[in-house]
Amino acid sequence: MEQVRLGDPRALARAISTVENRSAGWSELLKALFPHTGKARILGLTGPPGAGKSTLVDQLAKHYRKEKHTVGIIAVDPTSPYTGGAILGDRIRMQDHYADPGIYIRSMATRGSLGGLARTTVDVATVLDASGRDCILIETVGVGQDEVEIVRLADVTVVILVPGMGDDVQTIKAGIMEIADIFVINKSDREGAERVEREIRAMQSLATRSDGWTPPIVKTVASQGLGTEELAAAIVDYEAYLKKENLAFRKNVENWQERLVEMLRDAMLEKARAQMDAGSLERYAAEIAEHKRDPYSLVEEIVGRIDKNT
Amino acid sequence: MEQVRLGDPRALARAISTVENRSAGWSELLKALFPHTGKARILGLTGPPGAGKSTLVDQLAKHYRKEKHTVGIIAVDPTSPYTGGAILGDRIRMQDHYADPGIYIRSMATRGSLGGLARTTVDVATVLDASGRDCILIETVGVGQDEVEIVRLADVTVVILVPGMGDDVQTIKAGIMEIADIFVINKSDREGAERVEREIRAMQSLATRSDGWTPPIVKTVASQGLGTEELAAAIVDYEAYLKKENLAFRKNVENWQERLVEMLRDAMLEKARAQMDAGSLERYAAEIAEHKRDPYSLVEEIVGRIDKNT
Repeated sequence: MEQVRLGDPRALARAISTVENRSAGWSELLKALFPHTGKARILGLTGPPGAGKSTLVDQLAKHYRKEKHTVGIIAVDPTSPYTGGAILGDRIRMQDHYADPGIYIRSMATRGSLGGLARTTVDVATVLDASGRDCILIETVGVGQDEVEIVRLADVTVVILVPGMGDDVQTIKAGIMEIADIFVINKSDREGAERVEREIRAMQSLATRSDGWTPPIVKTVASQGLGTEELAAAIVDYEAYLKKENLAFRKNVENWQERLVEMLRDAMLEKARAQMDAGSLERYAAEIAEHKRDPYSLVEEIVGRIDKNT
Repeated sequence: MEQVRLGDPRALARAISTVENRSAGWSELLKALFPHTGKARILGLTGPPGAGKSTLVDQLAKHYRKEKHTVGIIAVDPTSPYTGGAILGDRIRMQDHYADPGIYIRSMATRGSLGGLARTTVDVATVLDASGRDCILIETVGVGQDEVEIVRLADVTVVILVPGMGDDVQTIKAGIMEIADIFVINKSDREGAERVEREIRAMQSLATRSDGWTPPIVKTVASQGLGTEELAAAIVDYEAYLKKENLAFRKNVENWQERLVEMLRDAMLEKARAQMDAGSLERYAAEIAEHKRDPYSLVEEIVGRIDKNT
């Protein structure tokens, strides 16, 4: 615990694995670390595949390093629930920053056996926060609900778009447009950047946010490092706005409310499972598959039994 | 209930809404309908944005109609958790089949307030199954974990790829390659189709499935209706294989096991919430945001209290 708080990279890696895999002591570890959190800025960055998220996140990390801030990156990858393997690309990326202990990169390749990906990401961010990282950058592919959920719970959410995203672009956007505190048009030297900007503006003219903030649009060419300073400045602006309007605390409470529901859901499932004997779930599943039982009555029955057994 | 079973479209729409929104009586409705399910073939189709899923699903629906089968389509869209609006495109699509009561299309735009998207989709499929639809086609964008989950629980899972998917194609694929019972290369008249096929074959040569099945690769040009018959034949082949090897029941039991866990998770959360007074969740969230409490101990406390209160 002390080692984690001092930011020792090996202790950090071990602590994150413990939390990610829900290994023995994970919950005690988080309880002990929680009082030391709340200092880091947590930024969420999302966008469709091919938007250049990793490159932009790397640029932003370098920017914060120049300002002498330490950085933690959590890269959430929609990989297989089966293989559980991390993506090669991230290993290569990691080597790129290997010389700088001020940047710590963690790939979250799978959702844990318990709890959703969003839940685990929040827990890993808690560990990084307690370890004294100044900025935590969470990067996800913004298409699935899970992935959207993750960045939505950040302090500042950046949505990255690119020109020419093809047929389903409206569909992709639908899920992530509303969560943006800041828009980035990356690869903005490509044809069609103006159109993307017009589309965002058109969307913004239709609805105003309840908090009164109009998300700015920042143009970047991350591969050449262009626009990173502007993005960093836009993040500072939004943070200042939240502070001025006293919105930061409100937002934090709302986020915790959602997280609590998720945590409660998982913990209650564990409670139910702990009271079922091994194999009973499979037996029930077979009975349902044979249509000897309906699953809806069964679940009510199991839940009802919880009170009586203890 | 009777009306739903007779396939009356208005009763069906009402029943699906009840289930989707968890309105009064949803659980009783599903209990009553469940014994009448298990007859429909449930096909899941997924692929990255822009793969032409909707077009292919429509072609497949037309094919089954020619064989005099009734069809239900569930189109799952990764839209905003806020607006909850269905996508315009699906309304247009719906009109296209309006004249044929043998095709019923339902857009699932949002995840319900309770339960994940996968859970709700399974329940909606139950309603369609009980209403006597012969084939149920579930279509999702295959990038997020949630979306992958949905089609994985189908009887047959079809993964749709297209040539030239850009930078992150490896990342997209990672999540959905293993769940494919059948691969489709759509827009196969485009350059790069051979390469996609080679990549799939290369992947297949690395690992064999535990059930011994090698997913075939079907090439289609859905916009011109090419390859639909071949896809339908591949689906029949896989179903025959499952039957011959006695795998269908096994798969069904496994699917139900996973669904039961999800259902239990939600039901237990409801139980926990029912015993918390209104506003207490918000109060707790505020205390956590102020760092007066740690959420991990709090959740244990709430779960522990469940037994005593009843």
